[in-house]
Amino acid sequence: LSAEHRRPRIAIDAMGGDHAPAEIVHGALLAAQSGEIETLLVGDERRLRPLVPASSNVRIVHAPKEIAMDASPSQALRGADETSLGMAVNLVRDGAADAVVSAGNSGAFLAVALFRLRTIAGIARPAIAAVLPAKGGPIVILDAGANVDCRPEWLAQFGVMGSAYAHGVLGIADPKVGIISVGEERVKGNAQVIEAASALDRAPITFIGNVEGKDVFAHVADVFVTDGFVGNVILKLSEGLATFVGDVVADEFRSGSALTKAGAFLAKPALRRVRRKLDYDTYGGAPLLGLRGNCIVAHGRANRYAMRSAIFAAASAVREDVVGHIEELVSRTDLNDLKAAP
Amino acid sequence: LSAEHRRPRIAIDAMGGDHAPAEIVHGALLAAQSGEIETLLVGDERRLRPLVPASSNVRIVHAPKEIAMDASPSQALRGADETSLGMAVNLVRDGAADAVVSAGNSGAFLAVALFRLRTIAGIARPAIAAVLPAKGGPIVILDAGANVDCRPEWLAQFGVMGSAYAHGVLGIADPKVGIISVGEERVKGNAQVIEAASALDRAPITFIGNVEGKDVFAHVADVFVTDGFVGNVILKLSEGLATFVGDVVADEFRSGSALTKAGAFLAKPALRRVRRKLDYDTYGGAPLLGLRGNCIVAHGRANRYAMRSAIFAAASAVREDVVGHIEELVSRTDLNDLKAAP
Repeated sequence: LSAEHRRPRIAIDAMGGDHAPAEIVHGALLAAQSGEIETLLVGDERRLRPLVPASSNVRIVHAPKEIAMDASPSQALRGADETSLGMAVNLVRDGAADAVVSAGNSGAFLAVALFRLRTIAGIARPAIAAVLPAKGGPIVILDAGANVDCRPEWLAQFGVMGSAYAHGVLGIADPKVGIISVGEERVKGNAQVIEAASALDRAPITFIGNVEGKDVFAHVADVFVTDGFVGNVILKLSEGLATFVGDVVADEFRSGSALTKAGAFLAKPALRRVRRKLDYDTYGGAPLLGLRGNCIVAHGRANRYAMRSAIFAAASAVREDVVGHIEELVSRTDLNDLKAAP
Repeated sequence: LSAEHRRPRIAIDAMGGDHAPAEIVHGALLAAQSGEIETLLVGDERRLRPLVPASSNVRIVHAPKEIAMDASPSQALRGADETSLGMAVNLVRDGAADAVVSAGNSGAFLAVALFRLRTIAGIARPAIAAVLPAKGGPIVILDAGANVDCRPEWLAQFGVMGSAYAHGVLGIADPKVGIISVGEERVKGNAQVIEAASALDRAPITFIGNVEGKDVFAHVADVFVTDGFVGNVILKLSEGLATFVGDVVADEFRSGSALTKAGAFLAKPALRRVRRKLDYDTYGGAPLLGLRGNCIVAHGRANRYAMRSAIFAAASAVREDVVGHIEELVSRTDLNDLKAAP
C-alpha cells in the first residue's frame, strides 16, 4: 500500500503535557474514532493500558521513561531514546509512523526532533508555525517560538517554508508572505528584518514586503515571518487580549441595566461562537516546519479536544505532504541568495 | 509664579499628523476650554489663524516650515529650528513651554527632541511609553517604538523610567516591573533579555522578572519592559486584534437569528462602552521618557479628541514632574550596575 492510500499513522507522546496521560489518551481515542487515522500511543504501558478500551484500535508502544516538563534541551537529549517523546520521534525517523504529536516540553521536542530527524537540505533551523484566525480565514505566523535569536537567512527560509505550508495545508493558491516590522517602508525595521526582506525578495514566493502588528488579524498577508521571540509574544499576547476582551464584555453585561442583561442573554450563543472562533486551541497543534518528518507541537495545557485537533493537524500534514512541499520549494530557491543581501 | 502654581504651558506642533492642521487646532481649542492649560500652537500662522477664534486663549507661534511625514530623522534634523516641530521642542528647551506634543513624524520627533533636549544623566536613549487598558486598570509598555535595536542596559534603564512614570503619573504606589520574554523562568529569553533582567534585579525598583505576552492584559505587572521593535508590534497587534474581535462580534450579530439581533440591539450601549475602553486613542498620547523635558507623541491619525487627550497627558506629565521623578530614581541607581551583569 503506498503512503497516499494508507491511513496516516500518528505517533503520540502520551506522557507529555499538563494533563498527561489521561487527556492525551482521550484525545487519541477521539481522533481514532474517525476511522481515518492510525494512532500509536507512546508511553508507560502500565499507566496507558487501563485508559484504552480493549475494543479501540489505538496501539500502545511502551516507553520506559519520560522527559520532565522543565528539562533543558540538552538534558532532554541525554537518554531520549528511552523516553516517550524520543521513541515517538524515532518511530517517524524509522518509517513506522508518518507524524509525531507532543504536548510536552516544547524545547525538548524541538531538540530531539532536530537531532533525530534532521532538517531538510537548505534549511538551517526548524520553525514553529502557528495558525491563527483572522479576517476572512486563517493566517500562519512563523517562527512562533522555536528560535529566539535568529539570523536573517533563517527568517528568509521561514518565509519559504510558511508559503509551502499555506499552499499545501491551508489550500491558499498563491500565499502572500510578509515580514513583521515596525513600518511598511522597506527602510523601517531592525537590521535583521531589513536583511531578511532583501533575501525574501529573491525567493520563489509572493513576498509583499514589510507588514506591521496591525496587519496580522487584518489578514494583509497569509504568512507572517518573524523570529521566535516576537512570534511567541504575538501568540501569547493574542491569547491574553482575547481573554481580556471577553472579560470586559462580560463585566459590561453584568453591571449593565436590565435591558443590557436581557440583550446579553439573547446574544449569548453568538458570543459563545465568537469565543470559539478566537480560541487558539481549536486551531489545533502547531507544526514544526523544516524537519525531515512531520512534527506537531500541541499546547502544554491541551485537553482531549485540543489533542484531537493536533492529531488531525498531523494527519493533514501527512496527507498534504508538507515535508515534500517544503523540499520542493527549497530546491527551487537559490540558497546562496538567501544567505546574503546583494 | 512657581512652576507648581502655574498652568502647564503646552507647545503643540500644529502641522504634524494626518489631519493637521485642522484637527490639531480643534484638539488644542478643546483642551484650552478646560481653563487649566495654556496652549501654544506652533505652525504656519496664515493657515492657523482662520481656525482659531479671536475669543480663544490659544496662542499661535509662527513657524515658517514643517517636517514631511516621510522625512528621515537625519533629514528632519537639518533646518529643524525653522519647522513647527523643531520650534515647539525649542520652546521647551528654552523654558517658554513645559511640554511639547506632536502627532507628526515620530522618528523626526524623537531625533529632534534627543538633540535639542538631550537625555537625563544616566539615560542612554529615550523610550516611548504606551499606556494600555488592562484588567483592573492601565499598564505601561516601554519602549513602544523609539529604539528598534536595543542594548541590555537600555532595557534596564527603561524599567527604571517606567517605574517612575507609573508611580508619578498613574499613581501606582509600588509599581511592579516585568521584562517581556518567552517564558517565566529566568533562563528563558534571548541573550539581550537575560542580561537586562540581571541588571534590573539590582535597580531600586520592584522587578518581578520575566513576563510573557499573555501577562500584559492580565496586568501581571504594571510596567512591561521590551525593545522598541517588540513594543511597537505589541501596540499595533493589540489595536488590530481589538478591531478584529469587534468585527467578529458584529458579524455574529448580523448573521444571527432574530433573537440574536434583538440581543445585539439591547446590548449596543454596553458594546459601545467596551469599544471605547479598548480604544487606544482615548488613552491619549505616549510620553517620550528619558529626556530633559516633557514630550508626548500623539497618534499620526489623531483626531481632535485624541489630540485633547494627548495635551491633557502632557499637562499631567508636567504637574506630576515626570522628568524630576526619573532623575531622582536614576540618581539612586548605580549605573555601572545597569551596564554589566555580575
